[in-house]
Amino acid sequence: MSPDEKTYLVTVDEGRRMGTHLGDLLLENAIGMEYGSVLQTTLLHPFILLEPTIEDRMMKVKRHTQIIYPKDAALIVLKTGLGAGMRVIECGSGSGALTIALANAVAPTGKVYAYDRNEKFMENARKNVENAGFGAFAEFKLREAQDGFDEEGVDAVVLDLPSPWDGIASASRALKGGGRIASLSPTYNQVERCVEVLAEEGFVYIETVELLMRNIRVSTGKTRPVDRMVSHTGFLTFGRKALKKIASKTSDTDSDDTD
Amino acid sequence: MSPDEKTYLVTVDEGRRMGTHLGDLLLENAIGMEYGSVLQTTLLHPFILLEPTIEDRMMKVKRHTQIIYPKDAALIVLKTGLGAGMRVIECGSGSGALTIALANAVAPTGKVYAYDRNEKFMENARKNVENAGFGAFAEFKLREAQDGFDEEGVDAVVLDLPSPWDGIASASRALKGGGRIASLSPTYNQVERCVEVLAEEGFVYIETVELLMRNIRVSTGKTRPVDRMVSHTGFLTFGRKALKKIASKTSDTDSDDTD
Amino acid sequence: MSPDEKTYLVTVDEGRRMGTHLGDLLLENAIGMEYGSVLQTTLLHPFILLEPTIEDRMMKVKRHTQIIYPKDAALIVLKTGLGAGMRVIECGSGSGALTIALANAVAPTGKVYAYDRNEKFMENARKNVENAGFGAFAEFKLREAQDGFDEEGVDAVVLDLPSPWDGIASASRALKGGGRIASLSPTYNQVERCVEVLAEEGFVYIETVELLMRNIRVSTGKTRPVDRMVSHTGFLTFGRKALKKIASKTSDTDSDDTD
Amino acid sequence: MSPDEKTYLVTVDEGRRMGTHLGDLLLENAIGMEYGSVLQTTLLHPFILLEPTIEDRMMKVKRHTQIIYPKDAALIVLKTGLGAGMRVIECGSGSGALTIALANAVAPTGKVYAYDRNEKFMENARKNVENAGFGAFAEFKLREAQDGFDEEGVDAVVLDLPSPWDGIASASRALKGGGRIASLSPTYNQVERCVEVLAEEGFVYIETVELLMRNIRVSTGKTRPVDRMVSHTGFLTFGRKALKKIASKTSDTDSDDTD
Repeated sequence: MSPDEKTYLVTVDEGRRMGTHLGDLLLENAIGMEYGSVLQTTLLHPFILLEPTIEDRMMKVKRHTQIIYPKDAALIVLKTGLGAGMRVIECGSGSGALTIALANAVAPTGKVYAYDRNEKFMENARKNVENAGFGAFAEFKLREAQDGFDEEGVDAVVLDLPSPWDGIASASRALKGGGRIASLSPTYNQVERCVEVLAEEGFVYIETVELLMRNIRVSTGKTRPVDRMVSHTGFLTFGRKALKKIASKTSDTDSDDTD
Repeated sequence: MSPDEKTYLVTVDEGRRMGTHLGDLLLENAIGMEYGSVLQTTLLHPFILLEPTIEDRMMKVKRHTQIIYPKDAALIVLKTGLGAGMRVIECGSGSGALTIALANAVAPTGKVYAYDRNEKFMENARKNVENAGFGAFAEFKLREAQDGFDEEGVDAVVLDLPSPWDGIASASRALKGGGRIASLSPTYNQVERCVEVLAEEGFVYIETVELLMRNIRVSTGKTRPVDRMVSHTGFLTFGRKALKKIASKTSDTDSDDTD
Repeated sequence: MSPDEKTYLVTVDEGRRMGTHLGDLLLENAIGMEYGSVLQTTLLHPFILLEPTIEDRMMKVKRHTQIIYPKDAALIVLKTGLGAGMRVIECGSGSGALTIALANAVAPTGKVYAYDRNEKFMENARKNVENAGFGAFAEFKLREAQDGFDEEGVDAVVLDLPSPWDGIASASRALKGGGRIASLSPTYNQVERCVEVLAEEGFVYIETVELLMRNIRVSTGKTRPVDRMVSHTGFLTFGRKALKKIASKTSDTDSDDTD
Repeated sequence: MSPDEKTYLVTVDEGRRMGTHLGDLLLENAIGMEYGSVLQTTLLHPFILLEPTIEDRMMKVKRHTQIIYPKDAALIVLKTGLGAGMRVIECGSGSGALTIALANAVAPTGKVYAYDRNEKFMENARKNVENAGFGAFAEFKLREAQDGFDEEGVDAVVLDLPSPWDGIASASRALKGGGRIASLSPTYNQVERCVEVLAEEGFVYIETVELLMRNIRVSTGKTRPVDRMVSHTGFLTFGRKALKKIASKTSDTDSDDTD
């Protein structure tokens, strides 16, 4: 991290030199240093060595696609109930940012089965996940969502697809009873159809939410929200697999007052 | 889960009978059933057996205090970079809801050191965490934040205190270099002082955010956000421990246009 | 206004006595008093006489329908460019709350033509508008939106209908060139179809917004947003009438990244 | 308005030629045209003639300062209860955008008394208000807020000051009983002190809100909120002048749960 709080995700190697706007860093000097220590640039600016968090690793993946935001990934991990040892299918793994968060959640004894239909994306995601140190916990597969998944009895399925409904029947077959599904979509139209198909396939406890994150500029005597924010990343839809279809009320939890 | 989507967190025992608004459930009939199966009440209403997620366990703790919301807990876990095997201090463990989320994140080889100054709260939290099945991953201690923590070199510290600044020096001593801190506070005044003290104590990469979660009522042809929402749970402040104090710009990331 | 900030909208008459939770008010004692003065109850609690604002009058109408929120009414008045002397059609006048805001904006020389298809609602709205002192600036008519409006060359049309598209062709005929239209709807589905029909009918500069209002609980040393808020009242769609149809881009102002 | 929805606020004069990214417009050709008509550029692109609304006029003022957003101006007009014939003081008139909205609200028989302490700003604001056609309804004065206002018995006072508390005593003296005050500030610290001083000066019914406006990108089959939004413009504080000071509870309307 530079003194002006720019961060760089780098591997420290012998002889490696990294250029910055505040001078060059001789990375091999960092070998043996503790995290939190200061490494000076050739222009004597103090950079701080920080251990990358999951969020750092997600945000720094090499991107071929729009990546999922950490706030959304965090809620998906929590709401699908992931923990060490679980098995989760991710369909539409894109650049692998979410794959990293899922792999971290199920490590050291679980596994992420990461499907994508685009080979170039898949290879990039695989590299990103390996670079983040989670290669052992993820298996990548080239497949269309509607062609089904190889796994059975998985704990959760996460869909990040333009047509999430294409993956719902496949997800249902792969999930164990009571298993959780999560789907991320930017438009209302996708959400509406996704929820319809989830209900048709017998999923229950369906809910859709959106998360807004607003940064606060904290400064003594003049604390205030920042001027601009990301106002939309996507809607998150969650559900659980029932073994037997019963009448569901979907997420119609309010009184009906649409006009 | 009842047909109208009420959920109950219960332990299935022989001879146990649970009353609901739709008739009684004979819980022992659930023994041997797969999750996702239907269990009928004495009035023949179909309830679905669901495996509790971390969110379910958090929301159903016996409460002596306001609990942290899942959306906030999820972001704290992600931003503090928790994963299997890590050691984390939680100060102000309250009813133990966040303790459960932290324990799940560091299991099966890590540990949560959960401090609280109120013995009654601590005992309730301990029971809640044990009931959730995470007793092996949490250690409870009765202590004031300013009296210091027993641990050294921990990966992260989470503060949920009325005066979070009371715990910052203690946190700094307990954290490893580059270790992460998170603090949750409902008021701007708390956040302002917390950020001041974090900067004084040499923390860097300080940022404060708030998360708003809005539920969407999805219903074919009449999809809309729900009418009312929780508009504030708390501000979340994050930082990382530098070993050497350098000039920090705190979270003043915007241009200065307060008037 | 009571000492605990409850407000009552009342007409002061001789002999009138009003019961409150803090004792009775003898309203005739208020005759001749200046606004801002204190009137005591029979139990000696101090109530303050306040002149009702437009917002007060809107919020206190006798309701037969869901009323429009002041924040939305305010934006409609601004974005339709209303001012003294203008003529505006309101279709779906409901309980007349918005009618009051529109009448105030065009008084003392303009007029609101308030259409509704429900006679009972219309009579209630008429009474509410008269009680608010704006009877001279509003004309009520019983009519379905698709049956057309009697006026021509009006400055603006405001639609508050379950099927706003039913009123768009009628609005177009009634509006002057460049005249403004506003439509309020709670669901995405309504908004989507409304915008389609607006574009088909040649409206331009179409935009849709939602307004969220969050109250702040200001208290020295513990200032924070309130816990709960109204998260959705409706989407507001605006447009302007072009005399000649040109290719419009509707409100597609972002880059296209829906998947 | 250009075919790609860029808007220009221009005065149509004989011989005037305006360059655009789509060719030149010969503005004199617009003389005698109805609003809503099409005017072609020299490159044959169709521009539409639109009558400027109050919002258009506000957004197009020549700026020497940050201007108030229309959403906030609209709520201020509504909550201060402005209407034709009222007299309102604005202190901190900046570039005059809010002055235009206030003048429109009180025209044709009311008046805005617009104070600013910066002569250059004041002259710019005066020109902006005159260009918008509201010169007759605004009077500009060079003055510090704490030096008092010349008017008495005004209906409302609007403060847009870095130190709004400097203007509260002056506002109180100028307001009629029950008169409304509004103050706009970007930081919590300003709001906190402003509310304290309002309560000390005997104002009642004090409330603070923030308005968030989110644009929706409506497009058949892929409707969604836009990606980015303005997340903060300012907090709006409102109050009413009581003639006698009584114990006030300020805006502490929630239960007290700050820890």
